[in-house]
This record gives sequence, C-alpha cells and structure tokens, in this order.
Amino acid sequence: MDVTNTNPGRAWADIILVNGTLLTMDKEYSILHDGAVAISGRDISAVGPPDVVLAHYQSKHIIDCSDCIIMPGLINAHTHLPMSLLRGLADDLRLDVWLHGYIIPVEREFVNPEFCFLGTQLSCAELIRSGVTCFADMYYFEEEVAWAAVQAGMRGICGETITKTPTPDASDFEVSLRYCSDLISHWSGHETIIPAPAPHSVYMCTDEILRRTTQMAVAANVPQLIHLDETNDETVNWLRTTGQRPARWLEDQGVLAAHTVAAHCVHASEEELDILKNNDVGIIHNPTSNLKLASGIAPVAQMLSRGMSVGLGTDGCASNNDQDMLEEMRLAALLSKAAVGDPMAVPAHSALAMATINGARALHLDDIIGSLEVGKRADIAVVRMDQLYQLPRFETTGQNVYSRLVYATKSSDVRDVIINGKIVLRDAQLLTIDESRVMAQASQLTEGVNHFFVAREHSLLDKLVAIGGSLEQREMYEIQAKGVIASLDGFLEALHDSKLTVTLHTSRNQYDTYFFFDDPQQGRLRYREDNVIEENGTLTPSYTLTLVGPVKEAEYEHSVVLSRSRFTANADRSLRFYREYFNPAYVREITKHRERYHIRYQGVDFAVNIDQITLPAQPQVYLEIKSRTWSEQDAFRKAALIGDLLSILGTNPRDMRIDAYIDLFHDDPA
Amino acid sequence: MDVTNTNPGRAWADIILVNGTLLTMDKEYSILHDGAVAISGRDISAVGPPDVVLAHYQSKHIIDCSDCIIMPGLINAHTHLPMSLLRGLADDLRLDVWLHGYIIPVEREFVNPEFCFLGTQLSCAELIRSGVTCFADMYYFEEEVAWAAVQAGMRGICGETITKTPTPDASDFEVSLRYCSDLISHWSGHETIIPAPAPHSVYMCTDEILRRTTQMAVAANVPQLIHLDETNDETVNWLRTTGQRPARWLEDQGVLAAHTVAAHCVHASEEELDILKNNDVGIIHNPTSNLKLASGIAPVAQMLSRGMSVGLGTDGCASNNDQDMLEEMRLAALLSKAAVGDPMAVPAHSALAMATINGARALHLDDIIGSLEVGKRADIAVVRMDQLYQLPRFETTGQNVYSRLVYATKSSDVRDVIINGKIVLRDAQLLTIDESRVMAQASQLTEGVNHFFVAREHSLLDKLVAIGGSLEQREMYEIQAKGVIASLDGFLEALHDSKLTVTLHTSRNQYDTYFFFDDPQQGRLRYREDNVIEENGTLTPSYTLTLVGPVKEAEYEHSVVLSRSRFTANADRSLRFYREYFNPAYVREITKHRERYHIRYQGVDFAVNIDQITLPAQPQVYLEIKSRTWSEQDAFRKAALIGDLLSILGTNPRDMRIDAYIDLFHDDPA
Repeated sequence: MDVTNTNPGRAWADIILVNGTLLTMDKEYSILHDGAVAISGRDISAVGPPDVVLAHYQSKHIIDCSDCIIMPGLINAHTHLPMSLLRGLADDLRLDVWLHGYIIPVEREFVNPEFCFLGTQLSCAELIRSGVTCFADMYYFEEEVAWAAVQAGMRGICGETITKTPTPDASDFEVSLRYCSDLISHWSGHETIIPAPAPHSVYMCTDEILRRTTQMAVAANVPQLIHLDETNDETVNWLRTTGQRPARWLEDQGVLAAHTVAAHCVHASEEELDILKNNDVGIIHNPTSNLKLASGIAPVAQMLSRGMSVGLGTDGCASNNDQDMLEEMRLAALLSKAAVGDPMAVPAHSALAMATINGARALHLDDIIGSLEVGKRADIAVVRMDQLYQLPRFETTGQNVYSRLVYATKSSDVRDVIINGKIVLRDAQLLTIDESRVMAQASQLTEGVNHFFVAREHSLLDKLVAIGGSLEQREMYEIQAKGVIASLDGFLEALHDSKLTVTLHTSRNQYDTYFFFDDPQQGRLRYREDNVIEENGTLTPSYTLTLVGPVKEAEYEHSVVLSRSRFTANADRSLRFYREYFNPAYVREITKHRERYHIRYQGVDFAVNIDQITLPAQPQVYLEIKSRTWSEQDAFRKAALIGDLLSILGTNPRDMRIDAYIDLFHDDPA
Repeated sequence: MDVTNTNPGRAWADIILVNGTLLTMDKEYSILHDGAVAISGRDISAVGPPDVVLAHYQSKHIIDCSDCIIMPGLINAHTHLPMSLLRGLADDLRLDVWLHGYIIPVEREFVNPEFCFLGTQLSCAELIRSGVTCFADMYYFEEEVAWAAVQAGMRGICGETITKTPTPDASDFEVSLRYCSDLISHWSGHETIIPAPAPHSVYMCTDEILRRTTQMAVAANVPQLIHLDETNDETVNWLRTTGQRPARWLEDQGVLAAHTVAAHCVHASEEELDILKNNDVGIIHNPTSNLKLASGIAPVAQMLSRGMSVGLGTDGCASNNDQDMLEEMRLAALLSKAAVGDPMAVPAHSALAMATINGARALHLDDIIGSLEVGKRADIAVVRMDQLYQLPRFETTGQNVYSRLVYATKSSDVRDVIINGKIVLRDAQLLTIDESRVMAQASQLTEGVNHFFVAREHSLLDKLVAIGGSLEQREMYEIQAKGVIASLDGFLEALHDSKLTVTLHTSRNQYDTYFFFDDPQQGRLRYREDNVIEENGTLTPSYTLTLVGPVKEAEYEHSVVLSRSRFTANADRSLRFYREYFNPAYVREITKHRERYHIRYQGVDFAVNIDQITLPAQPQVYLEIKSRTWSEQDAFRKAALIGDLLSILGTNPRDMRIDAYIDLFHDDPA
C-alpha cells in the first residue's frame, strides 16, 4: 500500500479504479488480486487494496474494474504513425521492391502535413483501443504528429526523421535539421509530447548529420531515436565500409552520448550489446516487423539476461500490418523461446515488462511512466478478463495472470484507457477521436493513393517510371529484318562489298530474360546482360531493361518490320528485383552469341548482327539488320535500304522471319 | 459463376449470402469483390455475383454481407479440445516439467468423460467465434468430444489417442484400441463427425499398436492422426534407437498406408518430406505451439514448394494458449519469412490456403470442404472488414484483401459462421452453445483443479509425490553429531579400538545441491550426486532427492541432534528438471570428499564420515556420526551411544556443531 495523502481525512481524487487485478509492474512485480488506484490530476496518488485506498481517498468518479486487469498503459516504443494510411498497400515483397516500388513513390507523391496529421489520428485510435498510452514515433512532419497526438490525448516521443537524401518534408538535410531544431524548441517542456531528433540509421545519414543531431538531443536533454542493425546487410555493409560494426561506430562518433533509443538490433553482436548496455541505450524489439521483412530474430533473451532496457514496438503499419501491442507481447514471448531453444525464455511477465516498465526504461521515461506507482503519471489500461478464451482462472504458479494476459488476451478486450490522468477510452468508446470522421477521411485520402497505383499497375511504362533511375524514354521507330543465313562464309565475304563500310565490330554474349504479362497490350520487358568480349578475352557487362511495346506499325517487303515504343533504362538493380517488382505472369530466357557489325550504307548507319542462339540451342545462324529513327518517313526510307542490304549480303528474303527470337522458341504457357 | 439450378425458374435456397468480398479459395484463387453464395440444405448450390445468383435462386433468408469477407470456414487441423480446461495451468516451463509436473498429474486426477465433454464445448465456442468450422482432435474419451461437437454443430475428426502407457480412458492399450474400434463403428458414416485412431507418436506407441490402428483406419476408410517429428529429441532418439528417422520408420512399418495426418513435422528431413509427400501424408503446422514449447520452426516454405498438403493447427490450449486460427495464419505467414530469409515466403493467400483448402487436403477432406465451390458443404465464415485497423482498402496488387485478412484482421471480427448449411454464429451471437452456462461450469470444474495444485504447491512433499517415480517415504528419526576433528591420524588410530568393528569403508565424492524456499516450514530439498570411488579408480554415481524437514525434535548432550521427516527418492530426472519443477527461491551447492566407515558398536550400526569440504573449500576436516531409527525410544539410546563413540574417537564434544554443512557456509540471501 502506498498513498500520497498522509492526512487523517479522506482527500479528493479525480478518479479511483477499484476491484481489479492490479499488475503494478513495480520492482517486485507486485500483484494485487483485488486492487485499487487513485488518480489525482495527472498522477497516481494511491495504489493498494480498495478498502485502504478508499480510506485515504474519495472521488465522484469511482470505476469498478471487477473481472478486469488494471495495468500500466502499454508503450509502443517504435512506430511510424502516419504510415497507418499505407497499411496493406503492398505486402509479401522484398524490402527493396517494397521500398523503391511502393513506399518511396507514395511518400514522394502523397506524404504532406495533412497526410501525417490524419495518419496519426488513425493510429492513435488504434493504439488507444489496444491499451497503448505512449508511443515513440519516427516519421516526417512531426509537428503534425505531435498536434494529432495532443488532440488524441496520447503521450509520445515525436522523432523527426533525418536522412542524407531528400525527404517528404525537406529538400535536403539542412532543412530537416532546421525543422527538427524548431520542433524541439516548440515542444520542449510539454506535458505529454517529447520532441526528438531521429536520424534514420547509420547508412541513411552522414557522420555530420549524426554529430549535429546528437548535439541537439544533448543540448535539449531529449532522447535520440535511430534504426540500428535491422538487417544483416546493414550490419555487414557497415563493417565492410567502416571497419566497424554500427554500434561500435556510433560510440566512436560520440553519438551514444545522447539518450539513445535504438530500434531493432536484430544483428547486434555480443560486443555491440556490451557497447549498447554500457551507454544505456534503449533497445526496441519489433518482432512482427522483423519477421515480416525477414530481417531475422533479435537476440532478446540475451539482451534481457544482460539487464538491458528492452522495449517493444509494432514498427509502422506498412510492415506489420497493425499496431497491436498485445500481439507484439505474445510474439516476443513466443519467438525468443524457439530462438534460444528454451521454453522458459522470456516468460509472460517479462514480455509484459517489455511493453511497460522495460519499455519506459528504454525510452528513458521510467521516472514518469511504465508502472503503477505513486507519483508516476496515471497512464493506465483496464482490460476485460471475462472472455471464454480467458478461462479458466488458475492461480497455481503466481504467474498465471500474466500468462492469461499475454498468451490469451486480445486487444479487443481493452475496456478503459487513462493517459496523464485523463480518460481517453471508456467502455471501449473513444472519447478523444471522432473515429467515423477519421475513417471516412482516411478512406477518401487513400482512394487517391490507390488510384495512383492502380493506374501504374496497368502500365508497365508507369511502373518503369515509378522506380526512377536512368530511364531513357526513347519512343522511336525500329526497322528490322531477321532470318536464317545459308552460309556464314558467304556473309563475311559480302561484308567486304565496296558499297558497305564496317565502322565497328564487337563480339558479345547476351543473356536476355523476358517478362510476359497477362495483358499482351502491356508489351513485355526484356532484361539484358550484354557482355562485350574484349580483345584480351575479358568481359565487359552492361545491363539494360527495355520495354517492348506490342505495336507492329507495318510490315514491308523483304519482311522488314517497323515497330514502335521502346523504352530503355540502365538496369541498375538486379534481375531479381525487377522480377519481384513487375511480377510477370511468366518469364523466359534466351541467350546468344552475337557478332555485331556497325555498317554504313548510303550514308545511313545499320547494325548487322550474326547471332548464334545457345539457349535454347539452335543449329542455324541468324542474321539481323536493324536501324532506328524518330521519323516515320525516315523509317520508310530505311526499310527500303534494308531490302538492298539483304540482297548485298546474299540473303534470301523468303527466309526472313518477322518474330523476335523469343517468340520463335518460347513456349507460351497461355 | 457456378450454380446447380439449371432450370429457367428461380429455385429455393435455404440461405443466400450477398454483397460480400468472396474469397473462394478455389484452384484459381478466384476473388469476387461483390459476390454471393446460395446454400441449399447442407451444400453450396451457387457461387457468383449477386445478380446472377439471385437470378437462379430465391430465399427467405438473404444475409447482407456488405463490408465483409465471405470465405471458407477455417480448419483447425490439430488440437486437443478438452484441454481448454487446462489453459494457463502452467506456462513458460520446459516440456518435461510441464508434462510430468502438471499435465500428467491433472490428467490422472481430473480427466473423465464430463471433463472432455465440457472442455470440448468451451473449445467449440472459441473455435466458432474465430471462424473455425472443422477441427481435427486428438484426446481421450472421444465419444464425448464427438457428442459435444455435434451439439455445437461443428464438423470434426475425433481422433482417439492411443499410447503404450495407461491413459485417462484406458488402463492399457488393449482397452484403448477397443474404445477406438467402438468409436469408429459408432460414428462411421456420420454427416459431420469422422472417427479416427490417433496413435500418439512413434515414441509413445509400439509397432504392434501402430499396425493395429493402421488396419483399423484402412478398414474403416478413416484418417489416422499422429504427432511426428515435433522435437529434435524425438527425431534424434528415434534415429538412434531404430536407425531410421520417424517418417522412414513409419513407411517401413506400413503405417502410411492409412490416410495419414501428421502434426508438427518440425524436424522432418528432406528425405522425410519426400516420404511424406509420396505417401500423401497431410502435414499440420502449429506455429504458436512450436514456438511456445521451443520445439523449433517447421520447414513450411519447403513443404509448400514441394506441393505438399499443409494445414494449420492451434494445438491444445495448454501450449498456445488459445485456439485462434487468425493468429495462427498470421504467425504462419510471418514465421516462414524469417525462417528462410525471404519476405516473399508464405504470402498471405498461402497462409489462408493452409487454414482452408490446403488444410482440407491435409485432412483428406478436400472433396467436401476447404473452398467455396458448388457441391461442397456449406462451411462458411463471414468476417467484418470495417474496423479501423482494416483501413485503407487498397486494391493495388490483387493480393491486398488477403493481406488485410491475414495481417490485420482479428478473430473478434468474425460475424457469422455456417457449418454444413446451418448457421451457428450470427452477428457474433453463438446459436448452438449456451456460453454462460458452459463458462460457469468450466469455472466450477477448474476450481477443483486449481485447488489440487495450490495445495500441492504449498507442500514440497505433495509436489514430490506428484511426480511419482521411486519415492521412498522414509519418515524416520535421524541422530547425528558433527564437528571438526583435531587430528585425522588420531581418528584413524582410534578406529582400530577393539570396541569397534569397521564393516565397510568407501570413498566418495558427493555433490549436493540444496533448494531453499521462501517458507522455511516447507523444509528444503537436497539433490545429491554420490560418486563411489571404486578400487580401480572408476566412479559409480547414484542420484537421490531428499526432502529435509525443518523439524529438530531434540538436542542431546554431546550436541547430538535428533531430527525427523526425511523423504528420499531416487532422482531419475535431471537436476535441471527438479530446479524448474520445484522453482526454489534460491539454490546453493556444496561438494565434499567423504571417507565413509560403517562401524558396529555395541551391536548397533553407525555411519562415521570423514568429510573434506571442497566447495566452498574449507581447511578443516569434519567428523560426522549418524544413525537412523523408526523408534523415538531407540533414538534416545543411540544418542547416548554416539556420545560414547565421540569420546572413543577422540573428539571433543565442545567442537561439535549442530548445523548441516550447508548452513555453515551458505549465504542466505534473505
């Protein structure tokens, strides 16, 4: 029993919760099977058995919590609140495809102050409904996040994300740093909002950015948020680049001088864990996100056994896809057991601690929140425990109530939520957010996002444009003739004809992968690895991605074909990326050895290719003559010249084929 | 569009669901964004757009499913239904402690037909509420399970568990086999109940049991359920014992000739997966249970890429702790991604398939359930999709609706459930089970279970008895004197005194671990590894567990102590097991070298020990003289004789100590 009222008379409390099972999450993990909490202003003024609390306090607002748990409000210690508006945009994709194909394009097009305000409102509604009273956010336009959180009545750390590249709210990092500095000035000392710099990660920042954000955090005495060791690639690449693993590097740069909160730490080494512990860095475990993005399983049991401060987060809705801390608690408890092969690892009470007092410690806020103790802020969740999946109510081990809460209770069982002494959820009714209005606005806004992507999905070109890079929009006419040649020797002799000049000759091995789509009008994509064989035998590769439109404009005599719509980009990503990003109906490969002769005939340049197709292996040798132009009239002229060339090169026009190689050999599954 | 009514007029359907998003889970994964399903009797008679379905069918019972998903009912393909009554009994324990310390004792004491009927009712309520229409159960008294399921209106495979050891419903396996045979005769041909033999596992059965259950299953054309490759120990031990991994062994024994359903397969090798696939064995993945018991992560992505039939299960409530198939779907999708390092592994639609059509295939029931197709049974779940965590409603990838369902939807969103054409849940109201009555009965029954364990937890002796084994209840008097001896040489010389006879002399290294408890009245437990050093230098160990009561009955002259209450058991489990099972407040160790002389003095046997304590290392050498008796009077006589012995052996009684060694050296943290 602990109370602030030491007078003999009964003091007035604003709210008194009675008759619940109290999980205090204090140092002794005290449980009161019949407990009460008095709330005076923003603070907890008494914790104890109902008769004792009621002997010291009276209130006009006594809330019966029979058949309920009364516990500290949950802390979602790593999230990206506005991203609730991107929930389910695209899932089950690899990180690069998801990020470059969906998230970056949508952030470029749609993320503005209104988006962030509305997204935060939607998230706050979800958070409060699942018993969360405090969040730590990392996103853009954090001024809006803060305002929306204040309206919702939530406590939160609003971390302004800073990267070395442009962001939705800053054309460069100087603008970001200024925004962050203003944010900190504006909100410092606020009752429930804690502003913070959130340099994205080691790889998305520079040492200068990190030095300046650290100065800012230290000067204002606010925490600093960062992603750390989330993926194996991040960690390994950083080690390769700097010779140090990320945590060691951060320590050397002086970054850990701030009250640091590091999200993920999936791939932190033993040495890094020591560094993080020695610098009192809070670790935020995001089990669902780490699984969903296949980042791995963080060594949580090891962190806890070192006595580190480990909190729990949902991460953003785009990689979760909800913000349900009851799910995260359960998963955190379950996952560590399999990870270390020990069913006793991370027991239920330990998972609840991560979501409450240990999370508060990780956010450097355990002096004010995280447990039900007199003098702390009244951040409280009341959870119904009368559902059939919460039966039976064993009390055999002293731990059963934690087990019922963590392994069997659902967020839909959260009944009341109090933040900073104010009731924000009562009988599952949100008091601070107009949910139906927020949901309607969210539907309206995201319809636009949906339309943007639907339009893009229906156009390979738009999808090509969306991933940006070095796309060269060469919409042009291509004239070509192609066919089996009877005699390679005859061809080589004919090349010496005095009417032709060979300006360049190269030998190449070409590996082409074609993406086919259900709608043939979309055209198809060709990913080409083109290896030029140098004189010394080495290979110089280049990679291109070409959109071949379906249009065959015309067919001329000599089977010369005129086509249009070719868009080529340097393929600076992997074939795997493009395959996952464009998600073709099927894929076919063709490889060939090509002798390419650039020839000039009547003042016009042509490419003459002698192709030996090796996959699928073909006995014949093919001749291909090509030219390109932007003018339709010019195309007609060049088609006629190709006719001449065919006869000079001794080819029988009747042998000419109009198909692309891929159409000659591939088996269309449709 | 597919209908059975080919007449021009509108036929009568019993129920028509309209205006929902239809996830058919047919071969093409067809989605109808505005769809309808007509139900005639037990079967689906039409699937298609509402206008088309309503053009062929009319009904007095048209259910609007706007803002809902209409999907096949979920299939919980591995569970132990009656164990809902043991939910949360004891968690976060190692398998052996959980099983031998809690589950086996409670099954011995409480599991009877009433228990199984009530537990199944409680489980069916939970299953239906989370959208489940079909289960595969393995437990005891399956007659009761079947009856309760029929009352609840559920479809299910009722697998009677058979083991080589006695079970709650059978004194030996002959009785089990007879029970199972009767069960099959009784329920064969039933509309919704499929009886089945469920030999527990390779290690809990014999080849004879498996041969006979297989004959039974084949003869009756029912499936056979079994646990397989659940833990690494199971698999490795079986390989060691038989030279074969479990799946290969089962194939060789002819067991896979039955329609086999194998739960878990966490540790199945590539070769075993081939065997299981070749024998058309259905695999049931239980992600939560496998994590919670630290069994591991099943190679689900590999199974699916082989085209195996993989269903999903919750396993029993004692290892989950709920039966929420939406959670299992989500976890199955998430877990595989991290397991294989590929965020594209087990995408949302694939997780839903495991819970529906793929699960039906695994249970060998895909001809009648698992998808919404005309002619199949009307087993259907309708799920609300209008919650804030289900926003936004993107349609960018063709997969978004699966993602919303699997990653963000909760079991509390299930609105209606239809099984075999009958509505069992409507607007979240259960129509077939009196929930409040079942919950009240469950509370009452489990209070008795709770009391059993609470009583046991308060008595170390009861806890010792509960794990059975070779407990020897030697409640007796022990008389002892102990102290530092001045001279070892003097002692050895005195041993040759003509009044004594040394009957036996052994040298031993003894490693003692003491468990201390908060309540000193409980006494304490000593785990002793006693190594007798043989003449050739080898060690012969024995292990004992001794409960030392707190009682010191009397203290005599010469500091001879009389104590009582010693219970000794052969410690046939590991120290680790006992530590986790008894969960002491703290643990201390003491090790010593002991020279033990069995001497006879005045016709009475005494043990005289010369002890050199090595941990914590002590400079002195101790002498201990002991004797035991069942008679208090005899104890007095022996105490006097010990006084004589002390003086014969040249020990100064003033040096005698009354404490146990552990009390001399250990630091009590309290």
